[in-house]
Amino acid sequence: MSNVNPVKGTHDVIGFEADAYAYIEHVFSQVAYSFGYDRIVTPIFEHTEVFDRATGESSDVVRKEMYTFLDKGDRSLTLRPEGTAGVMRSIVTNKLYVTPDLPLKLFYSGTMYRYERPQLGRFREFRQIGVECVGEDNPYIDAETIALAMRILQSLGFQGLKVKVNTLGDKASREAYKKALREYFAPRIDDMCEDCHQRLVLNPMRILDCKVPQDQEMAKSAPRMGEFLSEESKQRFKKTLSLLDDLDIDYEIDDGLVRGLDYYGEVVFEIHCLSHLGKDYGAICGGGHYEGLLSTFGGPSDIDVGVGFAMGVERIYSLMLDFDLLYDVRRDADLILMPMGEDALREAFALSDALRSLGYTVEAPYRQGKLGPLFKRAERKRAKYAIIFGEEELKQHVYQVKDLKEETQETVSVTDLPSYLEGHLVDEGEDEGE
Amino acid sequence: MSNVNPVKGTHDVIGFEADAYAYIEHVFSQVAYSFGYDRIVTPIFEHTEVFDRATGESSDVVRKEMYTFLDKGDRSLTLRPEGTAGVMRSIVTNKLYVTPDLPLKLFYSGTMYRYERPQLGRFREFRQIGVECVGEDNPYIDAETIALAMRILQSLGFQGLKVKVNTLGDKASREAYKKALREYFAPRIDDMCEDCHQRLVLNPMRILDCKVPQDQEMAKSAPRMGEFLSEESKQRFKKTLSLLDDLDIDYEIDDGLVRGLDYYGEVVFEIHCLSHLGKDYGAICGGGHYEGLLSTFGGPSDIDVGVGFAMGVERIYSLMLDFDLLYDVRRDADLILMPMGEDALREAFALSDALRSLGYTVEAPYRQGKLGPLFKRAERKRAKYAIIFGEEELKQHVYQVKDLKEETQETVSVTDLPSYLEGHLVDEGEDEGE
Repeated sequence: MSNVNPVKGTHDVIGFEADAYAYIEHVFSQVAYSFGYDRIVTPIFEHTEVFDRATGESSDVVRKEMYTFLDKGDRSLTLRPEGTAGVMRSIVTNKLYVTPDLPLKLFYSGTMYRYERPQLGRFREFRQIGVECVGEDNPYIDAETIALAMRILQSLGFQGLKVKVNTLGDKASREAYKKALREYFAPRIDDMCEDCHQRLVLNPMRILDCKVPQDQEMAKSAPRMGEFLSEESKQRFKKTLSLLDDLDIDYEIDDGLVRGLDYYGEVVFEIHCLSHLGKDYGAICGGGHYEGLLSTFGGPSDIDVGVGFAMGVERIYSLMLDFDLLYDVRRDADLILMPMGEDALREAFALSDALRSLGYTVEAPYRQGKLGPLFKRAERKRAKYAIIFGEEELKQHVYQVKDLKEETQETVSVTDLPSYLEGHLVDEGEDEGE
Repeated sequence: MSNVNPVKGTHDVIGFEADAYAYIEHVFSQVAYSFGYDRIVTPIFEHTEVFDRATGESSDVVRKEMYTFLDKGDRSLTLRPEGTAGVMRSIVTNKLYVTPDLPLKLFYSGTMYRYERPQLGRFREFRQIGVECVGEDNPYIDAETIALAMRILQSLGFQGLKVKVNTLGDKASREAYKKALREYFAPRIDDMCEDCHQRLVLNPMRILDCKVPQDQEMAKSAPRMGEFLSEESKQRFKKTLSLLDDLDIDYEIDDGLVRGLDYYGEVVFEIHCLSHLGKDYGAICGGGHYEGLLSTFGGPSDIDVGVGFAMGVERIYSLMLDFDLLYDVRRDADLILMPMGEDALREAFALSDALRSLGYTVEAPYRQGKLGPLFKRAERKRAKYAIIFGEEELKQHVYQVKDLKEETQETVSVTDLPSYLEGHLVDEGEDEGE
């Protein structure tokens, strides 16, 4: 019965992992707020044309990997494969660019969809967090966006981060470079993959991104972008790098770094995470400067620039697990109620409601039971205190309060319980923000 | 150019509204945690059969309103129309029921999809928060679930909440009731809507949910559930109500309240919000007890009971706006930097990064400008303090710090700035939790 399974390439996220995703999203949004960013949430699907337009000429290649379907009104809809196109469409739809406060600074977080062969760590439904800074254009903005990505990852606890950065120059620089690449690859193309044949025609810079080993080998001796840069682009890149120096951000120039989509230009970057032995865990963030996206949706062309980045949440989660950075996520129960007898069970019902309204996480049984299983449950839920009471305690208006770590027990009167707990749980109690 | 618009029935959520949704979700999850619930996130689409099975016989009626499509592997997939079916499928897929800690207590939050005629306040992409408490079954659990819904809404600031509650009894009670309803409606059905013709055959209790005015009129004199209840169901309902009394939860029995889906039984409820003049704003939460859902996915039948509820986030947001409950959501900038001259602009770049890393929300310009426009921007961003500096201040290692509310200004040395800000912003600074 295959249908009790989630659809191939999707998976359920439960308990700790789900809390971790929420934690990553929370830290991300707090740092983005501090940089003056606003939250944006676009729909999970768009008219297919939105993604065709954003990805440009290469839509055939991209469309193979999209979840495209017809709705009941015969519209071609597509589940978003990434976040940028929807945000750009939304800026135009809602005329967000009509503001004295350019650049627009928007952050998003959500699920994305790609119909690819499922592989280890690659899902058809996956989560991205990202930002777009749109409508103004200069090295301060480029450097601040790279800094934002770094500060987010540092706030999550990552160490050993390294920015790999490159410049794709302005349009004229790129055209000159593409010409040189075509001349270099044309005599070699017969030995290269099908997709690269197409890339040679549409945008030879994409060949440099090809994942096929022999094509990567071929690309190693290809001409480098740096030789084709205009003086202006060089100066701009230099300024961006010196601003990164101001912030003590560790970077290295990687002139093999090209982001293949047609709309990228000027600065592009990735953030890599290195172990203390220097092992590179790969890129956990990718981004760059882009041009011309607003006008593909009918937006204004005079402010049609931006810079942004995206990060994969599943990837961040898996690295945080490896590096043991998720200790803030685990939720322990504050209290477990252990009523003995029917009257105490009923008393526990009202008591748990009252204690929860004070902000405590409370475990309580729904039927009469023995103390043994309740203490086992207390262990599983990592409860800090047990509140034990039966007929005798009810009569005397007291509870037995047991510190489950220290293994000590005190008798506390009903009226004193809130202040008793406040005194004993206050140290640890303030991690409720998450 | 229709394609720069979001797809019909979907909409972009930006800035304050997006923050409000995140706030509602955050409060919801905090209260759910305190009740011992775990977070679950299921995929946005499932095999269509998942929803067919969960909704049972009536799938024809339901399917009309579903976003169903074929993927590239010719699988019939459906964007989830509600949250319960996916959670039940996930409990079975992941064998979550194999635990000593029944009932399972799971909460979810996410977008749902229904292909209906768009109406005021009704979207094809909409957000729900909800819980499922699965695998054990008694009045304590029913009452606690109703209490949880109340505590969530109260934590959001709602007042004047009233629970409408009813019992649908056990299976035998419902069969007897359905028989009586068939006898009552059969001679009247010719005057009723198309859908009700089908409902009469499949499940006549659904007729009572019909929104067509003349059908509602007809339903007013129909037999009531109460006459057909078994003694056991009566006692169980009575216990549930007395537990609600223990928690001072305001409820009223509404014997017209039936939830039409086949799997509901025993207690069902809605939470309504009343104005202080008694005006009913309608149901903002609906839920109830259900049976048989796990086994439709191949799960165990001996623990196949649950109780849950769902709330519409758009509806909650719109009421919170009306009742002015969103004052915690507005984010003001803490600081705006006002550098005068190129050197100060560059200094501001590093300063803004340092202040943001201390947790402050900082606005800063990316190019040289005049003070006038910066003060206007400070107003738009509701900045609390302006930090003003030019050549002279750089030379003397000081900043001019202006309290924008009090209109006072002080000279603060570079090294003293962090402690100065901590002293002045600390009162208001601690709403960072959101």
